Amino acid sequence: MKIDLNADIGEGFGRWRIADDDALMPLISSANIACGYHAGDHLIMDRMVRAAKAHHVSIGAHPGLPDLMGFGRRDMAVSAEEMEAMLAYQIGALKGIATRHGVRVEHVSYHAAFGTMANSDQDLADRLARVIAGLDSSLVMLCMAGHPIEKAAQKAGLRVRHLFLADRAYRADGTLVPRGQPGAVIHEPELMRERIGYFLKQGGVITQDGTALPIKTRSILLHSDTPGSDVLARTIASQIMEAGGQILRPD
Amino acid sequence: MKIDLNADIGEGFGRWRIADDDALMPLISSANIACGYHAGDHLIMDRMVRAAKAHHVSIGAHPGLPDLMGFGRRDMAVSAEEMEAMLAYQIGALKGIATRHGVRVEHVSYHAAFGTMANSDQDLADRLARVIAGLDSSLVMLCMAGHPIEKAAQKAGLRVRHLFLADRAYRADGTLVPRGQPGAVIHEPELMRERIGYFLKQGGVITQDGTALPIKTRSILLHSDTPGSDVLARTIASQIMEAGGQILRPD
Amino acid sequence: MKIDLNADIGEGFGRWRIADDDALMPLISSANIACGYHAGDHLIMDRMVRAAKAHHVSIGAHPGLPDLMGFGRRDMAVSAEEMEAMLAYQIGALKGIATRHGVRVEHVSYHAAFGTMANSDQDLADRLARVIAGLDSSLVMLCMAGHPIEKAAQKAGLRVRHLFLADRAYRADGTLVPRGQPGAVIHEPELMRERIGYFLKQGGVITQDGTALPIKTRSILLHSDTPGSDVLARTIASQIMEAGGQILRPD
Amino acid sequence: MKIDLNADIGEGFGRWRIADDDALMPLISSANIACGYHAGDHLIMDRMVRAAKAHHVSIGAHPGLPDLMGFGRRDMAVSAEEMEAMLAYQIGALKGIATRHGVRVEHVSYHAAFGTMANSDQDLADRLARVIAGLDSSLVMLCMAGHPIEKAAQKAGLRVRHLFLADRAYRADGTLVPRGQPGAVIHEPELMRERIGYFLKQGGVITQDGTALPIKTRSILLHSDTPGSDVLARTIASQIMEAGGQILRPD
Repeated sequence: MKIDLNADIGEGFGRWRIADDDALMPLISSANIACGYHAGDHLIMDRMVRAAKAHHVSIGAHPGLPDLMGFGRRDMAVSAEEMEAMLAYQIGALKGIATRHGVRVEHVSYHAAFGTMANSDQDLADRLARVIAGLDSSLVMLCMAGHPIEKAAQKAGLRVRHLFLADRAYRADGTLVPRGQPGAVIHEPELMRERIGYFLKQGGVITQDGTALPIKTRSILLHSDTPGSDVLARTIASQIMEAGGQILRPD
Repeated sequence: MKIDLNADIGEGFGRWRIADDDALMPLISSANIACGYHAGDHLIMDRMVRAAKAHHVSIGAHPGLPDLMGFGRRDMAVSAEEMEAMLAYQIGALKGIATRHGVRVEHVSYHAAFGTMANSDQDLADRLARVIAGLDSSLVMLCMAGHPIEKAAQKAGLRVRHLFLADRAYRADGTLVPRGQPGAVIHEPELMRERIGYFLKQGGVITQDGTALPIKTRSILLHSDTPGSDVLARTIASQIMEAGGQILRPD
Repeated sequence: MKIDLNADIGEGFGRWRIADDDALMPLISSANIACGYHAGDHLIMDRMVRAAKAHHVSIGAHPGLPDLMGFGRRDMAVSAEEMEAMLAYQIGALKGIATRHGVRVEHVSYHAAFGTMANSDQDLADRLARVIAGLDSSLVMLCMAGHPIEKAAQKAGLRVRHLFLADRAYRADGTLVPRGQPGAVIHEPELMRERIGYFLKQGGVITQDGTALPIKTRSILLHSDTPGSDVLARTIASQIMEAGGQILRPD
Repeated sequence: MKIDLNADIGEGFGRWRIADDDALMPLISSANIACGYHAGDHLIMDRMVRAAKAHHVSIGAHPGLPDLMGFGRRDMAVSAEEMEAMLAYQIGALKGIATRHGVRVEHVSYHAAFGTMANSDQDLADRLARVIAGLDSSLVMLCMAGHPIEKAAQKAGLRVRHLFLADRAYRADGTLVPRGQPGAVIHEPELMRERIGYFLKQGGVITQDGTALPIKTRSILLHSDTPGSDVLARTIASQIMEAGGQILRPD
């Protein structure tokens, strides 16, 4: 059983850090690298690409809104035309840095408000997916099953990879319980362990109303920006290995 | 006689503009597009690439230091490692935007302090040239003859294109009279006309001390950020055509 | 008859300019100076304060959202707490620069989306007005009659000054015809002349549906960011003087 | 014996943090608050002023170069005129935020390259000191004894407060052993304890060559950006109290 452990990486800026990227890199198999708009800068990106190469970690672009102060989480009134341009800019910038280290950019995963905007507007999601396909049709779109971003990727001929969010409660229809509602985010390590155990064995999750929901993926998203994310990564990694699995970058 | 009329383009930011890029684009044959560090943003870059495509203008990257307030003209203490990363980032970003319009990035021309730093340090110039060659070995380096940037490009196996600076006085050794010295910048349209006429006929320039200096290039750099640069471009263009020349993008 | 000719000033950044501030300064009597968030930087602010002092122009703060790329015109999801802090920051910054030149900041005029947000939310407008009153209770609030910003200023004990927008069509209820609707912005110099003439003589404006609307103010807002705003300012200035008026800073 | 424990505070940006400001605030007596140029933003500044008020901590401005990516540590070619303007801007901005909470800004402490530039150029240091005196002549200048910044402050009529740097080795002439030289920075807690003990008892420090150097101040600077600075602060605090001292804001 091959499992892909995926995380947002390089979300610092200058001297600042959100996560212990160096501790996480040896534990994960794929990294969504911030591209300088909501976080990340050329030097951090360069170091993250080097580290990913050294640890055989697959890299992808993690584009966001141009808002360092708001960490790309604030809604901004940005036109579809501008979203397209900033997407091409950010993926291109990461490709520039990756190419110089002989590394390929293999996937795209939208950050925060950038993703929310795409998921709230199928036409925008379609336009963005076509930008990605136009840049490199072999790029894989990381997303949740059944969302506009997934449909857009499929229409644009992109491969899709779903993510299992181990620390978020699911509803019976496969959507996430929105942040802010009680129980939306799972903090208890024991509960997290249980959920990952269930996911590894049953390929699914128990939703908030108690039903079993199948999740057809082998990728687990680890939220790197929660305190202690490196400890959590170590726990998940050992759990996967105990279950007879291997953490391997996706094909 | 084919002449390449080259200019820095897209050096605005948001609502701000330095030059009338839309008026210049139909007059020039190659454009150095600002990449978001000293000027330019994703939307301006996108529009400039579209306009360049529409007018059959060849595009190149115009990377600078990350200093919008100083327009990339202020020296900054930046390590060679960081210069490499910011160069790869900026060229990559423009490639991202160009690719989505089916356009190739064909050359690189350093902006202001970025170029000055490279020209003051052969080792840095060499490292940067290797970054460019590693990204795309077909990229052409725009530079002055005999400078460290040229030598670096040659060592890295890059093709080189020299620029004739019609509005700058030359010294007998081929270097420019430094800004700030009397007569360094030519403002008089009549004098400019004469110099361009001489360049077109004799392939050279009369230096400050009266000697004839051959300039082996067919590329003229137009400073787009001087007021009235579009009028000047129109003058030069008609002069080239009167002399039996054609403004054509370089091969 | 004393008329206050008011304009947004210093809305450039680094090398970039929107208006010819130096040409406008001798023609106006009060200036809303950009404070570095949507436009302006410490050096431009410093120069504008010096120029205002030299020309006996009254200065005020022109705070905006932190969005250089969008010129403070894009909506952003910013909390009321953050709006308060950024207002205090920007007014304080201008006071810092003004104090060193022995000049007082006399008013506040919100920029674009910052003002729109305040006008769409009475509670926010109230909180912001209290921030201003807390900084300096002698500051005058520039605004349109009857809007939430005016009510907030009155509640906070601030003096208020209304603006007549010479280049915008009014509706019978005193609000502006929204941008985007036909006739919302007056571009024809002759029509503008007529409107200013009517305003000077009758103290009002003919609204879009033909009724006469009194406008109880002696302040005319000149949009500095329209091309040729300095020519327009000259026209208005001579028209005021022909009508026997004087352009004088407000008391 | 009254001791002032001073630290740089609020040197995060948006979501990012360098130090645990909330843990430090109850332990210190004076805070140098970053003003948005090298670090800090309006929201962080607002929260830090509130926290300082709650804990009776004296606040000062901590101005830096406009370089978030370089944390204000990179040299930049900035004119003296621009340094003056950016100093007035930053102090003014903090005063704006402080005023709304009824708090006074009591001192100024230059950050990194901003301070290094001032200490390398007496004329620049003088101009900057005059800017501060012009804004508020009661502001106290924090600095090292005998440096150009001190002389400038004295010439401008500003009060001066020296700092004892507990974690930096001193030379016999009272200057610091430059970073990069062996032993320049003291990391060992036991050695730090000894030095603070000696400082509290003898009012001085043992320099690198073994001589006793008197340090005439009651202010200790704590470097907040070293990992574990809150633990260190707690150690120093208890040491001061054991020695019969009190941590109190300066008069």
